[in-house]
Amino acid sequence: MTTEFQEINIQIPRTDKPRVVIIGGGFAGLNIMKELDTRHYQIVVLDRHNYHTFQPLLYQVATAGLEPGSIAGPIRHLIEDNEEIFFRMAKVTQLNLERKTVTTPVGELRYDYLIIACGSRTNYFGKDEQFKEALPLKQIPQALNLRSHILQNFEKAVNTTDSYELRSLLNIVIVGGGPTGVEVAGALGELRSHVLPKDYPELNFRQMQIYLVEGMPRLLGGMSDKAGKKAIKYLKDFDINIMLNTMLESYNGKQVQLSNGEMIPSQTLIWAAGVKGNVIPGLPEEVLERDRILVDEHNRVRGFQEVFAVGDIAQMSTEKHPKGHPMLAPVAIQQGTLLAKNLNRMALGKPQKPFRYTNKGYMATVGRNRAVVDMPNGWSFGGFMAWLAWMFIHLMYLIGFRNKLVVFNNWIWNYFTYDRGIRLIIRPFDKEEKKKQREAEISGV
Amino acid sequence: MTTEFQEINIQIPRTDKPRVVIIGGGFAGLNIMKELDTRHYQIVVLDRHNYHTFQPLLYQVATAGLEPGSIAGPIRHLIEDNEEIFFRMAKVTQLNLERKTVTTPVGELRYDYLIIACGSRTNYFGKDEQFKEALPLKQIPQALNLRSHILQNFEKAVNTTDSYELRSLLNIVIVGGGPTGVEVAGALGELRSHVLPKDYPELNFRQMQIYLVEGMPRLLGGMSDKAGKKAIKYLKDFDINIMLNTMLESYNGKQVQLSNGEMIPSQTLIWAAGVKGNVIPGLPEEVLERDRILVDEHNRVRGFQEVFAVGDIAQMSTEKHPKGHPMLAPVAIQQGTLLAKNLNRMALGKPQKPFRYTNKGYMATVGRNRAVVDMPNGWSFGGFMAWLAWMFIHLMYLIGFRNKLVVFNNWIWNYFTYDRGIRLIIRPFDKEEKKKQREAEISGV
Repeated sequence: MTTEFQEINIQIPRTDKPRVVIIGGGFAGLNIMKELDTRHYQIVVLDRHNYHTFQPLLYQVATAGLEPGSIAGPIRHLIEDNEEIFFRMAKVTQLNLERKTVTTPVGELRYDYLIIACGSRTNYFGKDEQFKEALPLKQIPQALNLRSHILQNFEKAVNTTDSYELRSLLNIVIVGGGPTGVEVAGALGELRSHVLPKDYPELNFRQMQIYLVEGMPRLLGGMSDKAGKKAIKYLKDFDINIMLNTMLESYNGKQVQLSNGEMIPSQTLIWAAGVKGNVIPGLPEEVLERDRILVDEHNRVRGFQEVFAVGDIAQMSTEKHPKGHPMLAPVAIQQGTLLAKNLNRMALGKPQKPFRYTNKGYMATVGRNRAVVDMPNGWSFGGFMAWLAWMFIHLMYLIGFRNKLVVFNNWIWNYFTYDRGIRLIIRPFDKEEKKKQREAEISGV
Repeated sequence: MTTEFQEINIQIPRTDKPRVVIIGGGFAGLNIMKELDTRHYQIVVLDRHNYHTFQPLLYQVATAGLEPGSIAGPIRHLIEDNEEIFFRMAKVTQLNLERKTVTTPVGELRYDYLIIACGSRTNYFGKDEQFKEALPLKQIPQALNLRSHILQNFEKAVNTTDSYELRSLLNIVIVGGGPTGVEVAGALGELRSHVLPKDYPELNFRQMQIYLVEGMPRLLGGMSDKAGKKAIKYLKDFDINIMLNTMLESYNGKQVQLSNGEMIPSQTLIWAAGVKGNVIPGLPEEVLERDRILVDEHNRVRGFQEVFAVGDIAQMSTEKHPKGHPMLAPVAIQQGTLLAKNLNRMALGKPQKPFRYTNKGYMATVGRNRAVVDMPNGWSFGGFMAWLAWMFIHLMYLIGFRNKLVVFNNWIWNYFTYDRGIRLIIRPFDKEEKKKQREAEISGV
């Protein structure tokens, strides 16, 4: 091992094992930690947060169904049984591939192997400035801000006499008809049916419109036609206004201008239209393609023997997926697991295996008793059974027994009481908070 | 009824029933809502938050044992079955007793009867500026900030080589040996024994000292001598350093200077030394005494037939309590309930009853299996039975069945796993957040 570089600042004991630095404690990073053999490697995990976020349930935090703590798990808790795995809460701001270090605000860290697993962030498709009043839903603080914002608007609405202002406070527009958009629309529809009219008897909820806007001619583009159609049917059960073939033209925080000419007064525009790789500066341009890192079938970054990228940030073309893989948790889990196994094999001088994505199916839920499932064999189903399957799978993949239990209990409670107990404005989402969120978002925090 | 005053801004339908405006949705406010008869009165509740906070368990939010949502309940949920009770989320900034209105940022509101039940806030005994680096623990955002702050310090500590800096990051000083101080010290002692060493194997926890500083010669001044002594014994089981007869001299955010000459390096000073009434401008000076409002035995503010004050903010002298009542939940609950009943009696032309405080006992917990209880009959006990009693009483008084269930489940989980699942830094407590908290505190928000 080369040892001529001194650690600057980040304090990790140097052993004679090669050090693997993992950037990101998401699905990919967690599965690498789990599989990578610490008899061969020292592992250092870096993340800007001290917790893992179970992103598939973020929308339930935003809609007052779950507490943040039930979908987040402290990373240190996950590694507490292994002394060869280190965690440092630090956002990597720069990769120094020649020096073999990463730079963070708390110092530099030397690696022998680097695994970039820092996931994705909200994609405004270059219109970041134009759509700056839109509300993203990709991290826990953003979900809490959204929850506060919606509740604050209702508290304002009860005190508003201007009818245009009132409609703009009540209306909610969701841009993006993928799983997040569909799930958040359904959850808001449920809130409007079961919770809000009891909380705000002074408001007329027929004045509250929820819009789901999608640029394509269908919903759930990554799923089957049947699933897309079922989603439309289910959303209509909750009185969601679905606008297909429609794009967002502009938004000033009060009024939504759509490509079909419609103007909707709304102070809440939820942006669920897409994500992009969370690229860290320091990578040569030739390994980047549309904000993702080009990797080979072993998740190795082109031209760097000791640098890997996995999950949402990685762009891997295989015979079966020439355009790359979907930016979804199962891909991250499978790539992370395989990469760890390959590194273990490498340490033993064994040959490595190329990545082959195993499609285990796709699913999305719309609300109580309603979900859609596409099975890997092409079979597609919906309704109550799909909804049970959705819950079961999400509980299974949720990290940690405590969180499984808490989420399960919450779901049971919410199902039978029709209640959402956490409609609290703990931290108001004010201008200052909005500015902070915006700055963090632009810098990828 | 006088109706010549027009409502300015706050929109509440005017009926022919007299309007009771309640400022504050704490223990006093909630019990008035519950008891006051809406056949005789229209009720409007104003609170700066949209939720009630169960303050006795705040310290468990600060120490990663409970989520905020399990000790907070949406006020609207509590009133949803009664159309004659209105809620407005608004902080009252001014009382206009001659005009019979209150001023809020969202407008003015006319009252027929006013009940001031806005509780208390942290008391720095005039040294607000001097102790500005101290961390208060009186509201949910403050508890979350404290949780973040402590965890952030540990994340910094693993990367620190300077031994003084390291000690200042690990050490925690709690000022105030009342129930809050004792409970938070015990909870931190438990964290240090059972959770932190697993999370941070790279740190030596013998370097982490927890100090409980109290100006009086004993702990739990409001309870029996026996309870105070037991608390000391229990805290010593958790290796808490107890300093009696000691005052805080100064604190610069890094170093604690005590009156006994000791200097403790610590970046965490928790201020649990006292509270004071949350006085709203607009009251004549003659009804104020040391930040509390002087009331008669019917909780009526001197000289104002239609204005009342209850709970922590009220200063009532009775024969048995010539110096006033303790600023505790049971007093607020009993005063609120009696005032509502008296107003109901008044509407029926019946005579009113004077307030007599029923002491139902006092209790404080130190940690697992350890608590102290003083019974009203003078009997005092501690240990496991006291701890069970403490849990039972707190669950009983917790508002709402959902919260009881969630807290109960969490306690079971924490007890058997020795775990604290919510050690998450969701919103880092940075300089900007500190400034915000400070400003809110000074203005009484």
